[in-house]
Amino acid sequence: MKKMINHVDNVVREQLEGVAKAHPDLAVSLEPAFIRRARLPGNKVVLISGGGSGHEPMHSGFVGYGMLDAACPGEIFTSPTPDQMVECAKQLNTGKGILFLVKNYTGDVMNFETAVEILHGDGMKVQVALIDDDVAVKDSLYTAGRRGVAATVLAEKILGAATEAGYSLEQCSTLAKRITNHARSIGIALSACTVPAAGKPGFELAENEIEFGIGIHGEPGIKRATFTDSDTTTREMMERLLDNSSYQRTVRRWNGDLGDWQEENWTTASLMQGDKVIVLVNSLGGTPLSELYCVYRKVAEILEQRGIIIERNLIGAYCTSLDMQGVSISLLNADDEMLSLWDKPVNTPALRWGC
Amino acid sequence: MKKMINHVDNVVREQLEGVAKAHPDLAVSLEPAFIRRARLPGNKVVLISGGGSGHEPMHSGFVGYGMLDAACPGEIFTSPTPDQMVECAKQLNTGKGILFLVKNYTGDVMNFETAVEILHGDGMKVQVALIDDDVAVKDSLYTAGRRGVAATVLAEKILGAATEAGYSLEQCSTLAKRITNHARSIGIALSACTVPAAGKPGFELAENEIEFGIGIHGEPGIKRATFTDSDTTTREMMERLLDNSSYQRTVRRWNGDLGDWQEENWTTASLMQGDKVIVLVNSLGGTPLSELYCVYRKVAEILEQRGIIIERNLIGAYCTSLDMQGVSISLLNADDEMLSLWDKPVNTPALRWGC
Repeated sequence: MKKMINHVDNVVREQLEGVAKAHPDLAVSLEPAFIRRARLPGNKVVLISGGGSGHEPMHSGFVGYGMLDAACPGEIFTSPTPDQMVECAKQLNTGKGILFLVKNYTGDVMNFETAVEILHGDGMKVQVALIDDDVAVKDSLYTAGRRGVAATVLAEKILGAATEAGYSLEQCSTLAKRITNHARSIGIALSACTVPAAGKPGFELAENEIEFGIGIHGEPGIKRATFTDSDTTTREMMERLLDNSSYQRTVRRWNGDLGDWQEENWTTASLMQGDKVIVLVNSLGGTPLSELYCVYRKVAEILEQRGIIIERNLIGAYCTSLDMQGVSISLLNADDEMLSLWDKPVNTPALRWGC
Repeated sequence: MKKMINHVDNVVREQLEGVAKAHPDLAVSLEPAFIRRARLPGNKVVLISGGGSGHEPMHSGFVGYGMLDAACPGEIFTSPTPDQMVECAKQLNTGKGILFLVKNYTGDVMNFETAVEILHGDGMKVQVALIDDDVAVKDSLYTAGRRGVAATVLAEKILGAATEAGYSLEQCSTLAKRITNHARSIGIALSACTVPAAGKPGFELAENEIEFGIGIHGEPGIKRATFTDSDTTTREMMERLLDNSSYQRTVRRWNGDLGDWQEENWTTASLMQGDKVIVLVNSLGGTPLSELYCVYRKVAEILEQRGIIIERNLIGAYCTSLDMQGVSISLLNADDEMLSLWDKPVNTPALRWGC
C-alpha cells in the first residue's frame, strides 16, 4: 500500500489539520473530532451530519454557509461516537433545534440516537433525519434496511438551504423525510478500495468483473457481474433505479414531547413519467471525471426515453470510498421546493455557488 | 483494463456528448472537436485553451463565464489539431483578439502556432500564451524546456477574469507572461495511469517506489525514489519547488504587426520571504481528497516556516492524468492584481463561485 499518508493511526487527524489550515471559515476540534462553521448565525436550526471517514468530500467538505453547520468524522469506515455529536451540538446550539442527518448504517444510527437521548436529557431540542437511498440491498453487512449513500449529498444541500431560510426543526424534519422517500441510488465497483489500516484492497475482482450494487465501504451488493462496457452497466443500473416496486420500512423517529422513540411507516414514492429529478453521477474515488460524463450521457438518454426530466445535475467525486474505482448514480425526485432550495447559494470547500 | 467507457476509439467523443447533455450553457462541436460557451459577450478578448484529453476537468471543465471561452480537446494525451483551434477561434471571434493558452509540449505548441499563422492570414488578431511551470525537468520526452502542468488551471482562472474585465489582448498577453514567470509546479506518482488505447498501466512501480517529478502523461521525472511517508515526500517536493536557482529560456512570441515570430528571453522570478502565493494541491486522478489535505497540511507548515504567505488555496483533482495515483503542488507568486482577478466570479462545471 502506497498512500500520501504518514502513520495509519493519524490519517483522520492529519486530514483534519489540513482542513483547519486550508479553510479559515471552519473551526476544527480534534478531541472530540468535529468540523464546524467558525461563525454561525444565532437564529437557525443547526444541521449536523457525520459518519465514518473515507468518503470525502462527504461530510467535512460540505460544512459551510448553506449546507452543513458541522460534521463529525469517525475513523475510516467507522461511526463517530456519541461524545463527538454531543459536544458538537452543544457548541453550536442556537435554541432553534439540532437536526442530525444520518446515513442508515447500524453503528451510525445507534450512536446518533444515543446522542439524541443525551441532548434531550440536557434540555435540547433535537431530531434525527435518516437517509436510506441505496436500492441495491435490503439488509446488508452493516445495515438493517437500505443503506444511506450518495443521495446524502443532495439532502445536505437542500436541508442546509432550508435551515438558512429559517425553516423550523419540524419543517426540516418533514422535508428530510420527503427527500429520503424520493431518493434512490445504486453503485458499482470496478476495483476495491484499500483501507489504510488493512494495507491491501478489501476484495479482488477478476479482469472482466464488477461488483454490482456495491456499498460505500466496499461491502458486497447484488452480484458479481461480467463487465462488457459502460453503456451496458449504466443501463442495468438505471433499470434497477427505475424499478418502482414499493419499498416500505419502519423508521424510528424521536418524539421530543414524549422524550421517546416512536415508529413510523415510510414508503418510497414511485418515479413516474413527467417527474423532475436531480441527478448525481458520482465517482467512488478512483474513477476519472471523463468516465462520469460517459455514464451521464447514457443516464440522460434513458431518462429522456422514460419522459423523466433532469432539472439539475451534479457530476464528480462527492461521496467516495477512498480510492475505489466505481460509479454511483442517484436520482432525487425533486419538487419545486426542493429545486428552489437546491439553487440557493452555498459556500463549502467542495460545493460552492452564488457565494 | 476496466473503465466506464465503451469502445476505446469513442472515449473522447462520448465524454463530449456527456458534457453537451449536462451543461446547456456550453455548446459542443464534435467535428472538429471543441467546447465553447454557448453565448459570448461581443466585446471581450477570447480565451481558448486545449490539449490532449485525459486531464479532466482541465480544460473542458473550465469553460464558462470568468474562465475559458472554449477548449479544444485532442485524443487522450495527444495534441489537438490546428483545424480545431482555427474553427473554434473563427466561431468565437469578437474582433478584440484571441488568446491561446498553451501548455508547453512540443506537439501542442506546434499546432497552436500553426493555428496562429492561419488565423493571422485570415486577418484575425491572435496571440499565444505559454505555460511552462513544471520545475521537475528541463527538456523531457515530449518537451523542449519545462513542461506545462497544473499551474495552467490558475492561469486560466486569472486570465479568464481579465478578459471578462475588459483587458486588451496586449494586456492579457503581458499578464500571461507574468503568471508563467511566477508559477512553479512539481508532481509525484504512486502508480501509473492506464491509457484506454494501451489497455495497461504505462509503467510499473515497486511497492515502496514513487516516480518523483512525474509529468501529466506519465512521462518520467527526476528519479525513482523510495517512498516512506507523505511528509517526507511533501518536504522533498517543496524543496525542489522553493529552489530559487534561475530558470531562463527563449520563448517565441507572435508579433501581429510584423506577422512573424520573435524571440524573447524570459526569466522565472525568485520566491522570497514575504511573498504571497496561491497554492494548488492537486490529485493526479486516483488520489483521494483526504490525502491531499494531509499534503496541504505540510505544505502550509513549510511555507509558514519560510515566511511565504498563502493568500488562496485550491485543493482537489483539477489537472489529472486519468486514474494515476499521485499529487502535484503548484505555487503561484501572486501580486494584488492576480489575487483580485482570482477572486472574481467564475461559473464553469469544475470551478464556480460568486455565480
